[in-house]
Amino acid sequence: MDLHGGNIYRFKREGKEKLLDYSSNINPFGISERVKEIILRNFEEIERYPDIDYVELREAIAQYNDCDKDNVVVGNGATEVLFLYMKSIEGKKVLIIAPTFSEYERAAEIAGKEVVFIEYGRGFELDEERLLEKSVECDIVVICNPNNPTGKFHDLEKIERVANYLEKKDKKLFIDEAFIEFITDWKKKTASNLRRKNIFVLRALTKFFGMPGVRLGYGLSYDDKLLEKMHSIREPWSINAIAEIAGKTIIFDKSYINKTKEWIESEREWFYRELLKIEKITPIETKINFILIELRKHNAKEIQERMIEKGILIRDASNFKFLTDNYIRLAIKDRENNIKVLKSLAEVVK
Amino acid sequence: MDLHGGNIYRFKREGKEKLLDYSSNINPFGISERVKEIILRNFEEIERYPDIDYVELREAIAQYNDCDKDNVVVGNGATEVLFLYMKSIEGKKVLIIAPTFSEYERAAEIAGKEVVFIEYGRGFELDEERLLEKSVECDIVVICNPNNPTGKFHDLEKIERVANYLEKKDKKLFIDEAFIEFITDWKKKTASNLRRKNIFVLRALTKFFGMPGVRLGYGLSYDDKLLEKMHSIREPWSINAIAEIAGKTIIFDKSYINKTKEWIESEREWFYRELLKIEKITPIETKINFILIELRKHNAKEIQERMIEKGILIRDASNFKFLTDNYIRLAIKDRENNIKVLKSLAEVVK
Repeated sequence: MDLHGGNIYRFKREGKEKLLDYSSNINPFGISERVKEIILRNFEEIERYPDIDYVELREAIAQYNDCDKDNVVVGNGATEVLFLYMKSIEGKKVLIIAPTFSEYERAAEIAGKEVVFIEYGRGFELDEERLLEKSVECDIVVICNPNNPTGKFHDLEKIERVANYLEKKDKKLFIDEAFIEFITDWKKKTASNLRRKNIFVLRALTKFFGMPGVRLGYGLSYDDKLLEKMHSIREPWSINAIAEIAGKTIIFDKSYINKTKEWIESEREWFYRELLKIEKITPIETKINFILIELRKHNAKEIQERMIEKGILIRDASNFKFLTDNYIRLAIKDRENNIKVLKSLAEVVK
Repeated sequence: MDLHGGNIYRFKREGKEKLLDYSSNINPFGISERVKEIILRNFEEIERYPDIDYVELREAIAQYNDCDKDNVVVGNGATEVLFLYMKSIEGKKVLIIAPTFSEYERAAEIAGKEVVFIEYGRGFELDEERLLEKSVECDIVVICNPNNPTGKFHDLEKIERVANYLEKKDKKLFIDEAFIEFITDWKKKTASNLRRKNIFVLRALTKFFGMPGVRLGYGLSYDDKLLEKMHSIREPWSINAIAEIAGKTIIFDKSYINKTKEWIESEREWFYRELLKIEKITPIETKINFILIELRKHNAKEIQERMIEKGILIRDASNFKFLTDNYIRLAIKDRENNIKVLKSLAEVVK
């Protein structure tokens, strides 16, 4: 499988050992020192099976999201929750707004559903009219918000209008908020505030908290029947003991959360403005911790290869549906590395 | 879900904090010090996504099993591999020899297959004749070997005869060897030695190596079409970074393996003989690290409750198919704790 960013291993196997990874969108602070300490202090938990019902973990996540543990379903990464949802939700036809993360399509198809796509509108904004029109023939609408790879965020009013419309037609809305914690004031902007039976909200815990190797995601839902079905088909003990400890800890680590907030709010803006100064590329304004870039004179594959020569792995974004072969995606990291990437990119597109 | 052993969390939630867990079957040595050291030294791996293809991990497992990495499919615990197999294998009807682990039935049913059972023969031995007779109407036969909860092991000659017969009829054999490393000279006795296209061998890595919280299992197969299907529907990054590091390390930790071997070979025999001395119970002779016990005068639920009062959690085995409500299962641990359990059990069945 080579559909995703972050596949630095393939390049390592080709002998490119020391690439700086700008292809995957992880918090550059890495794991919180406090959380690491707690994991190490409780390391002997790996000598036991995790709680098959993950009660404490779901309680912690519920507290973080102001809901009840019964509204929380946990998974081995957001991916497991996505796959469980697609296997559990009624309805045959899924509408995906693209370009977006490729696993929605895969999960829907593996669950035996039919998938149709519509394209984001001008400037990768959500075209509500087109969406509502196309949704008539579908049962489930999938929106990634903030969207990967475009970095756009659709505000709660817009999401609520879509949810209202879909509710009247007895249709479902699946919202992937894997990156939402990188959005300023996200707690006021999440679709989970709507507490709607027809909305399912997907979250990842390990991107924002800099530990994707740990694998932990969850879903929030107010649809009891759906939650029951998801629990009934899930594999036992799918979340490992380290993820369980980390999950219960990281979400309450205020100093890490604040540090990350300060970093992303200053760095995102700065990085975008610096990219604007580079000729022959068009960065797409982003609300989160990665940025899509249109290459006006180059091919993405070529630029990826030339960046690798400079020791930097970037994401060739041309395999996202509706993107042409001149899109790349960059992570946003710390200033020192961002400067390095800007310099290299300016050289290779010259 | 309360079908399984090891659910010490439910009892903890009821305020029973310090139970000695004899309900789950894990190596009592816990995690190897050497492996722990390697995990801690590579702890920053959790700040990255794991290799989506798990090439190095599959190579290590292949080396451990004298096969090629292309014969290895890895999963988030043996459970994920079992579920993937059931979703990928062709055939509608699954024959399960019971009493046995309950997840085969669940995995088959979730994959839309029909399940039929036959019972083990006298003394929980495999009744080949009955098996072959019943297999006529089935597509896939599931055998747990060594079997949970009976502790019986069917030798390779027997498995080969069954595989031969099934191969002629174009049927599949799924063998769960999650506990095989606790068997003396297991490398000569594993079904993977047969290298048959119609045999799939399931393995767990974290029971024998005392770290079930880490979640790592794998399958061995010589059926390219099946392997391709399994890879095509698997969820990406399902194995966490700690499991990946542990998996590459533990299987080569000879001193841990030898220590475990010495312990199980002496303790198993001793524990069985001591159980024979207790009146009103019939221990079933075992080849592995747990033992099934028939209570001749008591009910399993009652004995479980009375053992909890003594601070020990045992497995009420009465919910295994074909077992009556007077079976319990005990793990085998270190001598000190085994003595404690023997003493308590003798008291409660008096």
